[in-house]
Amino acid sequence: MTDPQAATDPQAPDPQAPTAPQAPADRPDTRPGPDDPYLIISSDCHAGLPTEEYRPYLEARFHRAFDTFLGERDARRAAATRLGIRNEAFAARWFQDHEEGLRGGWDPAQRLKELDGDGVAAEVVFPDADAVDSGTAAPFGVGLGLSGDQDPDLGMAGAQAHNRWLADFVSGHPERHCGVALLPVTADTGRVVAEIHRAKESGLGALMIPSMWVDKEPYHDRRYDPVWAAAAECAMPVLTHSGAAPRHEYGDHLGIYVSEVTWWPARPLWFLLWSGVFERHPGLRFGVAESGCWWLPNLLWFMDRLYLGAHGGKKLSPFAALKRPPHEYLDRQVFVCATNTKRRELAQRYEIGVDNILWGSDFPHPEGTWPDTRGWLTKTFHDIPVAETRRMLGLSAAEAFGFDTARLAPLARRIGPTPADLGQSADQPAVEASWARSREVGRHWLTDHDFPVLGAQ
Amino acid sequence: MTDPQAATDPQAPDPQAPTAPQAPADRPDTRPGPDDPYLIISSDCHAGLPTEEYRPYLEARFHRAFDTFLGERDARRAAATRLGIRNEAFAARWFQDHEEGLRGGWDPAQRLKELDGDGVAAEVVFPDADAVDSGTAAPFGVGLGLSGDQDPDLGMAGAQAHNRWLADFVSGHPERHCGVALLPVTADTGRVVAEIHRAKESGLGALMIPSMWVDKEPYHDRRYDPVWAAAAECAMPVLTHSGAAPRHEYGDHLGIYVSEVTWWPARPLWFLLWSGVFERHPGLRFGVAESGCWWLPNLLWFMDRLYLGAHGGKKLSPFAALKRPPHEYLDRQVFVCATNTKRRELAQRYEIGVDNILWGSDFPHPEGTWPDTRGWLTKTFHDIPVAETRRMLGLSAAEAFGFDTARLAPLARRIGPTPADLGQSADQPAVEASWARSREVGRHWLTDHDFPVLGAQ
Repeated sequence: MTDPQAATDPQAPDPQAPTAPQAPADRPDTRPGPDDPYLIISSDCHAGLPTEEYRPYLEARFHRAFDTFLGERDARRAAATRLGIRNEAFAARWFQDHEEGLRGGWDPAQRLKELDGDGVAAEVVFPDADAVDSGTAAPFGVGLGLSGDQDPDLGMAGAQAHNRWLADFVSGHPERHCGVALLPVTADTGRVVAEIHRAKESGLGALMIPSMWVDKEPYHDRRYDPVWAAAAECAMPVLTHSGAAPRHEYGDHLGIYVSEVTWWPARPLWFLLWSGVFERHPGLRFGVAESGCWWLPNLLWFMDRLYLGAHGGKKLSPFAALKRPPHEYLDRQVFVCATNTKRRELAQRYEIGVDNILWGSDFPHPEGTWPDTRGWLTKTFHDIPVAETRRMLGLSAAEAFGFDTARLAPLARRIGPTPADLGQSADQPAVEASWARSREVGRHWLTDHDFPVLGAQ
Repeated sequence: MTDPQAATDPQAPDPQAPTAPQAPADRPDTRPGPDDPYLIISSDCHAGLPTEEYRPYLEARFHRAFDTFLGERDARRAAATRLGIRNEAFAARWFQDHEEGLRGGWDPAQRLKELDGDGVAAEVVFPDADAVDSGTAAPFGVGLGLSGDQDPDLGMAGAQAHNRWLADFVSGHPERHCGVALLPVTADTGRVVAEIHRAKESGLGALMIPSMWVDKEPYHDRRYDPVWAAAAECAMPVLTHSGAAPRHEYGDHLGIYVSEVTWWPARPLWFLLWSGVFERHPGLRFGVAESGCWWLPNLLWFMDRLYLGAHGGKKLSPFAALKRPPHEYLDRQVFVCATNTKRRELAQRYEIGVDNILWGSDFPHPEGTWPDTRGWLTKTFHDIPVAETRRMLGLSAAEAFGFDTARLAPLARRIGPTPADLGQSADQPAVEASWARSREVGRHWLTDHDFPVLGAQ
């Protein structure tokens, strides 16, 4: 913690919280057996203070601007209601039904209870716990709405306030949380790099950048190279998360917003890739959160074909910034926090890359799986091979975000659902065999097949 | 023809052109037999005058601005070279190898020769014949680069110049061409509506609007209602075509441009759909050209689920502007000019809707199938049922654009490839059966299946 103000944090974790991992581990080999409970890591959860409580984490010189920001809350709520993102009737019921659990958005003890109840051993913590009423928006709109055209001073102040609080929030059980620092990357590069190091030292583990640079330099610009280098050096994955979009273009048509809100956070991926950022920074990892992964196979097919020389390529220049085809960078450095994965997406996992798909519960957002994560997982994963399920539900996230699986193993064994709990068959060779053709075809454009084969046979 | 200037058109069609349809038809029933040649209609071709030759089609008061525009050609070419859209070495070879055929971009007799050689009976004619060197760009950048932030006066002047020329160009064999009028739809609505009627009377059959409105009103805006109404009244489909994109964001990274250039022309689809344009204008037809159709299944799955009430929907308002789910508007009013369809796309045709896919040759662009359309069709369609192939190669385009299939039938019988020419089996019941499972599952989210089934079994 670098901010002494935050030492007064009223939300200090309860040492008696029910989910503190039990040591020593009850067996030395932490590799799961075939029937062992899953180690579940949600790659997309949310936490944030009720907005007014961010004040102690904010430098005093911004308090006046903060008062102004608070005063504009009603106008923001009205705008969200107008677009239909906010629905009065639903909001009232949601808060009534889940009053206690929703406090887990900012109360660490309550949060661990909710994670345990859902079988989730660890989580990646994005901002904005309250997706219904924006009651926990970070100061100055730097939460999920983080945008490239943010005022640089206010943006950095708001981000640091949230980052300070979040570092406190995750400090009670650091093995269970990877806090995502807000990074207003379009601000002064020196300050941005300094904030990366400060966030790392404070105990945070990843960085969220705006999906949209708006009027600032796009992410292919070399001015960002020091930022990517610092992120790689600190082993902090860089993430975008759905939320921001050009809402001024949508009128009051919610369907338009929802139809493209996942495109904007995905967009930086091809800006980074084609401009050689992954080539120049092989240690950089980049993730796209809560945008699904249904769009990735088409994108990869499209980009690989372009690179490998499709028919249309005969009038195109070579792609000098890349030394290898797009899918190799993807497999090496990119992942998707796909949140509540859909059956259609799982059917495409051999194109996406099983190891590139990171499940998430989206706790405590209503579009997520909480508080019925077991039910959702059963519905979605019942016929997926257990070995692949282990990757998607936790092991890949552990690698991407640096969770200590050995330390989490005892907890997972206590709270995690077993394969049988998810309706998965004990006859795994048969399950594996049912997907053999789909797995063999894989990325059909690389395996000389006409088209993908989806689903079990 | 409404412009007397154009009466001096030096490109008047040659009455001895080899492809004038032969009358009378050699049999009264024009429905094809199982082995009959295909009636092929390319839903995406291009024609345009060498830019300087547009002068006589342009109102005299714009000649001075036109000289300025011509003077900036080198700068535009340099910009295209910098982004990598233009490649010197490829350009030199392309023009050398295809010198004669490329004249078909503006010479009607040569064009018919090329269409005949490719087996193409009729075509939809977009602007910009020269995709390599932009030598046939319409005045003031209103061709494929048509953009919402175009100067309204220059934009309308340039569009009318092209539209006048194009009306002449297609007048020799109107049954073989559907000319696409350029429509700078963000200009004054009265003028736009007037241009729709003028274009219709001049013999043009469709309307191309900018993919990007940029700083003007998005297409959900009610100010466009008179435009959609006029298009419906004139039975002129409204089209977007790939080309425009926010190039200022791409630096010199061609891969970025190519990775998203198909998204921008698709984007108006969900703006029109969710804002109820298709509901209010049931006679309106909308098409997206040269953007593939691989993105459509995901979009439809996503939009239908949103409308029909996915889990996430519990916090969303109803979609009052729509009386039916998105796929119903799609099937009723939307199509894709998918150009050189890919095997991956054809495998998804039961999700897209077979009748919504309109093949195109892209003549005379190098990324198209000309001059080897038979080869491409064989490679792509060899195992697709003949009945479906007939729809995608021509019959659906005939319906969408109002081609007279009876009048085209004799020509098609003379120049079109047969199913056997495309390597298609004579045992069509077996071919149909091989796709039965894929067809039966169709749009899996409507047929209660987990995921799509792609490909023949």
